[in-house]
Amino acid sequence: MGPGPLDIHPRVYQALTSPVIGHMDPAYFKTLDQVAEGLRQVFQTQNKVTQATPGTGTSGMEACVANLMEPADPVLVCVHGYFGDRVRQMAERQEAEVTVIEGEWGRPTDPQQVEEALKAKAFKVITVVHAETSTGVLQPMDDIVRLAKENGVMILLDTVTSLGGVELKADAWGLDAAYSCSQKCIGAPPGLAPVTFSDRAVEAARSRKHPIRSWYLDITLLDKYWGSDRMYHHTSSSTMNYALLEALLLIEEEGLQNRFERHLANHRALVAGVETMGLEMLVKPEHRLPTLNTIRVPDGVDEAGVRGYLLKTFNLEIGAGLGALAGQVWRVGLMGYASSAENVLFFLSAISRALAIQGYKTDLSAGQDAAMSLLDA
Amino acid sequence: MGPGPLDIHPRVYQALTSPVIGHMDPAYFKTLDQVAEGLRQVFQTQNKVTQATPGTGTSGMEACVANLMEPADPVLVCVHGYFGDRVRQMAERQEAEVTVIEGEWGRPTDPQQVEEALKAKAFKVITVVHAETSTGVLQPMDDIVRLAKENGVMILLDTVTSLGGVELKADAWGLDAAYSCSQKCIGAPPGLAPVTFSDRAVEAARSRKHPIRSWYLDITLLDKYWGSDRMYHHTSSSTMNYALLEALLLIEEEGLQNRFERHLANHRALVAGVETMGLEMLVKPEHRLPTLNTIRVPDGVDEAGVRGYLLKTFNLEIGAGLGALAGQVWRVGLMGYASSAENVLFFLSAISRALAIQGYKTDLSAGQDAAMSLLDA
Repeated sequence: MGPGPLDIHPRVYQALTSPVIGHMDPAYFKTLDQVAEGLRQVFQTQNKVTQATPGTGTSGMEACVANLMEPADPVLVCVHGYFGDRVRQMAERQEAEVTVIEGEWGRPTDPQQVEEALKAKAFKVITVVHAETSTGVLQPMDDIVRLAKENGVMILLDTVTSLGGVELKADAWGLDAAYSCSQKCIGAPPGLAPVTFSDRAVEAARSRKHPIRSWYLDITLLDKYWGSDRMYHHTSSSTMNYALLEALLLIEEEGLQNRFERHLANHRALVAGVETMGLEMLVKPEHRLPTLNTIRVPDGVDEAGVRGYLLKTFNLEIGAGLGALAGQVWRVGLMGYASSAENVLFFLSAISRALAIQGYKTDLSAGQDAAMSLLDA
Repeated sequence: MGPGPLDIHPRVYQALTSPVIGHMDPAYFKTLDQVAEGLRQVFQTQNKVTQATPGTGTSGMEACVANLMEPADPVLVCVHGYFGDRVRQMAERQEAEVTVIEGEWGRPTDPQQVEEALKAKAFKVITVVHAETSTGVLQPMDDIVRLAKENGVMILLDTVTSLGGVELKADAWGLDAAYSCSQKCIGAPPGLAPVTFSDRAVEAARSRKHPIRSWYLDITLLDKYWGSDRMYHHTSSSTMNYALLEALLLIEEEGLQNRFERHLANHRALVAGVETMGLEMLVKPEHRLPTLNTIRVPDGVDEAGVRGYLLKTFNLEIGAGLGALAGQVWRVGLMGYASSAENVLFFLSAISRALAIQGYKTDLSAGQDAAMSLLDA
């Protein structure tokens, strides 16, 4: 129950044992088509160039940054956590002309600052983190979407901890590039990075002045393999894509809206339990990410000690704080198959006991009642 | 039985279903240590920086090229097939100053040409393909190793189709960087790329003038995760690394020399059968790669028709020719778990039937006798 990977559905484990098949086998191309179609549904897009890049989520981030940014490109990078900062680092490595909006960790990017930045300079791309995995903040998109449209700026969105877990409308929002990972709300093992590129973004990648530095993540080459050309590029892992496909089929069976509601309900229950037990959430209610819950470490409690106890005693992993939040928060994931009433209950019981060991008393019964009254309703 | 992926051992399938575990879990770090140690054994190296980059074989190629080459670096790229050419493309994208030795497809790089090139100019790196997957050529290394040493040039070696299948001595040969893949002679599914970097290569990556363009494949960051720092970098796929570890344990159990002998014996049997049946190998005997057999398509035979028949009728995949050899050869892999007497027999029978359908008669009995007399001996 950390920030991911999380427990996966038995059917996804089963899919991993499907016989390995060649990356140029016509039967496998059908699998890739199904994966692409499933990803279009979760991204809510018609983008032709929608696929899973052959690496972990960070490979998807790099694919988006490396394809859309070239030397001297003016780009606006919104940073309010660890992963926004990672985008900044990547943009700088592409030698883009980077302007940063630094926000507070634990709050979303302020649209006012975006408006001012866009007024002051013409940018090619604005990068935004939809769901900041380091802080548990869900970025409201309305203003940013409007401002980007008004200013003709391309939007590159980090959806690592939102895709498949919370509302995300690539086409309605006019996203130009978005990336995610396989192991969080999608519910597959780590190893693939769903990405989608608008036609405008693909055209931008095709008409660059400088070649894309990454051959491996060149979206124009990747598209020749995933698209109708079926031109060999890399040895696509059938094992990983079978697992991703099974996870996507599970999403289709559940229905995207039902899935969002399940994530939200379990999140609300966890928060009710945690707060009733006297713990504090890092993020204000209106900006909380339903998939990743950041809980402040109470004064006097040994942060790492709690995590160590949970892992050792209950085989339960939760995440540590990253970067500026190291030592200050725990990150508790409720994503995909692992977003469940049993995990809400399990976490409340386990954290209560871990805190008790350190002499920090909580009222578990009251917490459990608060959580379950929301879920039983 | 194409150029890979190939059939994998049941124990490797089993490993894929091990529970997904967090990339920062102490128990998982032990797995990574075991993977690294297993890879050191197959690379025959003591290099500290030995790991599996989080992507397919091409991610390993890109990791080696992107870390060791920066703008204006003089590099010598030996091309005698499709993958040598891919290295050239990557080197050019890094804006290295690339000199190419163009060799004939189906022959190794001529050391005489290497000697002349190294005499004419001081290079930082020479890139060589040990086992050219597109042609089935095994590059003799003695002269190149000697010349690189004499000239103080770093060697970057493609070992995609050799690692775990034929002799490969990273330390004895003084290699500075080498990359491979998980799905060929190693015998795991595709999705990881074993790499090894000498101390000198790591130092070269650390002391670059320009930052490494790829954040995802920056070996100095990857080493902080795989090495003793255990600093988070990407969400390492436990699923993939469990499978790789199981494959490496199978190699350890068999013994590296026994494994090389098995690959050689099955290769010789296949060649004896194929030649007795009147087919011709592309590569001269002294340069043949035991893991990938390139067979010339006889005049008048429909190359793709044969592959289609094998796939449809026997569920048997073999590889097509790539690039300059498209339509001219078949590529038949005998690697890892799939390098077996039963596959030799199966292939001879299947190709004989596929050719018969096209009116091309072969003496299967004689071919089988020739093959099996070598294996029974």
